[in-house]
Amino acid sequence: MTVVGGTDAGTTVREDGVPRVAGIGELELESGFRLPGVRIAYETWGTLAPDGSNAVLVEHALTGDTHVATGRARPGAPEAERRAAQSGGWWEGLVGPGAAIDTDRWFVVCTNILGGCYGSTGPATPAPPEVDPQGRPWGSRFPLVTVRDCVHAEAALADALGIDAWRLVIGGSMGGARALEWAVTYPDRVRACAVVAACAQSSAEQLAWGQAQKLAIRQDPHFRGGDYYDGPPPVTGLGLARRIAHITYRSADELHHRFGRSPQADEQVIDTHADGRGRYQVESYLDHQASKLAGRFDANSYLAVNETLMSHDVARGRGTLEEALSVTSCEWLVAAVDSDRLYLPHESDVLAAALPGDVRRHTLTSPSGHDGFLIETPQLGKLLVETVLREH
Amino acid sequence: MTVVGGTDAGTTVREDGVPRVAGIGELELESGFRLPGVRIAYETWGTLAPDGSNAVLVEHALTGDTHVATGRARPGAPEAERRAAQSGGWWEGLVGPGAAIDTDRWFVVCTNILGGCYGSTGPATPAPPEVDPQGRPWGSRFPLVTVRDCVHAEAALADALGIDAWRLVIGGSMGGARALEWAVTYPDRVRACAVVAACAQSSAEQLAWGQAQKLAIRQDPHFRGGDYYDGPPPVTGLGLARRIAHITYRSADELHHRFGRSPQADEQVIDTHADGRGRYQVESYLDHQASKLAGRFDANSYLAVNETLMSHDVARGRGTLEEALSVTSCEWLVAAVDSDRLYLPHESDVLAAALPGDVRRHTLTSPSGHDGFLIETPQLGKLLVETVLREH
Repeated sequence: MTVVGGTDAGTTVREDGVPRVAGIGELELESGFRLPGVRIAYETWGTLAPDGSNAVLVEHALTGDTHVATGRARPGAPEAERRAAQSGGWWEGLVGPGAAIDTDRWFVVCTNILGGCYGSTGPATPAPPEVDPQGRPWGSRFPLVTVRDCVHAEAALADALGIDAWRLVIGGSMGGARALEWAVTYPDRVRACAVVAACAQSSAEQLAWGQAQKLAIRQDPHFRGGDYYDGPPPVTGLGLARRIAHITYRSADELHHRFGRSPQADEQVIDTHADGRGRYQVESYLDHQASKLAGRFDANSYLAVNETLMSHDVARGRGTLEEALSVTSCEWLVAAVDSDRLYLPHESDVLAAALPGDVRRHTLTSPSGHDGFLIETPQLGKLLVETVLREH
Repeated sequence: MTVVGGTDAGTTVREDGVPRVAGIGELELESGFRLPGVRIAYETWGTLAPDGSNAVLVEHALTGDTHVATGRARPGAPEAERRAAQSGGWWEGLVGPGAAIDTDRWFVVCTNILGGCYGSTGPATPAPPEVDPQGRPWGSRFPLVTVRDCVHAEAALADALGIDAWRLVIGGSMGGARALEWAVTYPDRVRACAVVAACAQSSAEQLAWGQAQKLAIRQDPHFRGGDYYDGPPPVTGLGLARRIAHITYRSADELHHRFGRSPQADEQVIDTHADGRGRYQVESYLDHQASKLAGRFDANSYLAVNETLMSHDVARGRGTLEEALSVTSCEWLVAAVDSDRLYLPHESDVLAAALPGDVRRHTLTSPSGHDGFLIETPQLGKLLVETVLREH
């Protein structure tokens, strides 16, 4: 492993939530494609025990990053690094000193997914000289990466970090897909697995929405087949993809109660022409979600992780779902959000029923739909300490 | 009224399901915009009683047309007219001789919505000389039309046809919105009203999906602000809008059982690059839905009717929903599809509860989601003859 940024985990002064990047070399993908010079970005919290027994892997969702929770840079670190470490994370409250995933006890690792745009190799990464002598970004040449490929990349990182087995692998949504794939691909390296608001195989419904999001980006004239890095990025298409996704991430009930049919401020929604009319609040809300995402995410990476999620099928090439899961021997937490319309609680039931042993499906109660897995951290924390993280 | 096509309803040889067009002159819209030279396309089945008491208005859904059911052209009609009349309709089985809406008894009228592309004035219609001396299509100049505006246009058509009051106004989805708006805007002209898979006010959820569909079309480079009639039409954007809509029209369960994760034929879904990979069956199915719609519908009309549906609020300017509905005195059939995820049964409950008197919400049982209102015609027919069309 080549550590490119930050310092090693073994440093005496502990630092948490600071971005690092590790080189893991060439990765052969499920498709047979050989991806050279792969780098995986990650952050860590806490200290790895000498016997390596206290490592927890947190897997982010579709457009997530490595910053799960507030951290702290080492004294003397550059101001930017200190500020980044101190900023709140996407599972704030679930991970930290004294939290359910207690960083005074566990060594927590969060990786950026292969194909993402938060430090790991992705479509915006300059291609190596053997692919592009001019070092232009991979762009349209970036390969299709499956969930299984991502897990193989993370296993190489675990090797490099000296982690033989994870005490827990946990993720929500696409992070849950990765967690599940870990437990099946490397059953000897996962002691416990928490699959939250995720399923065993991306469903027809999820594939359908995935296709719509893909097409939204691809039809943006700025997309130019994926090789747009020398011009304006396809933010319009990316924004539409995000709107579509975001609706599926929330609940109709929540949209109704938050926005109803109200116009935004004093905008006039009934006007002579649709083009110039004012917006409904829910439109303004989705505009905001679209521009937030378009400002922080690369469209090609969105397509890449969208494809990865569409590829999700823990049973591919492994027989029936029951047969595929039969190799696992870890403890399980399977939890669904009751108002989730994208990852239906029923699909978590299917997963729980297919797992070896007697695995119960737990519920996060939330009005927020799928995004409840990010929001209902107190409930999730309680479930964790009562199940896979309970004292033995 | 100017009857532009076909023959008058009073012809001795009865003809059913033959397209006609009536000119209703200028229409002042809710926004204040004055739309000149409005024409409304329609078809009829059966014979209007001398006292005009047996007229039934059928309102189509978003991209529907006037051909509700098989008809018959008059002897000697051109071959194309005969074939069109004899083709099956979108509510085949519900309307016809001996059917629940028995055309031997009722005089059935179905109008094409204002703004549509099946004969009524819409964005593709040449603008009149005072708007465009060259007679180019309305295009981007076509105004925003509300559900209420559509009903006003249809009232002018009813006047022209000599129909003072409808024995029944019935519609599903957006047709249900129009039916409801009829009963409230013209309470003296509606004896019974059937609102199927529709609600009192387009919800935040429906607005959200409406926005996504709008943006899908508008970002197609061929759209050119709506003035594309001298070039290739924005079929890619229209196709994406249809895909988004179609997913919301069906149920996740149905997609799961019909398609699951199966690849289309022997296509290879895991490939080295996403761009060239094979399709999942559900993708191929949505491709088919997209190209079917793009082949038969004008993108500007799609935007127009989409805006019309977003405008739907039977209580706009009329106080609370209860107050708005209090002017009605007709009989009601309010029915929802149990698996509908776009027009939730709960919204039909809200409507039924707000109607004067004791109105029950009925249920169509269907695995197909919202589209169940088009599919479950035997159930709907039975409901009709047991409620609003029962013998007195």
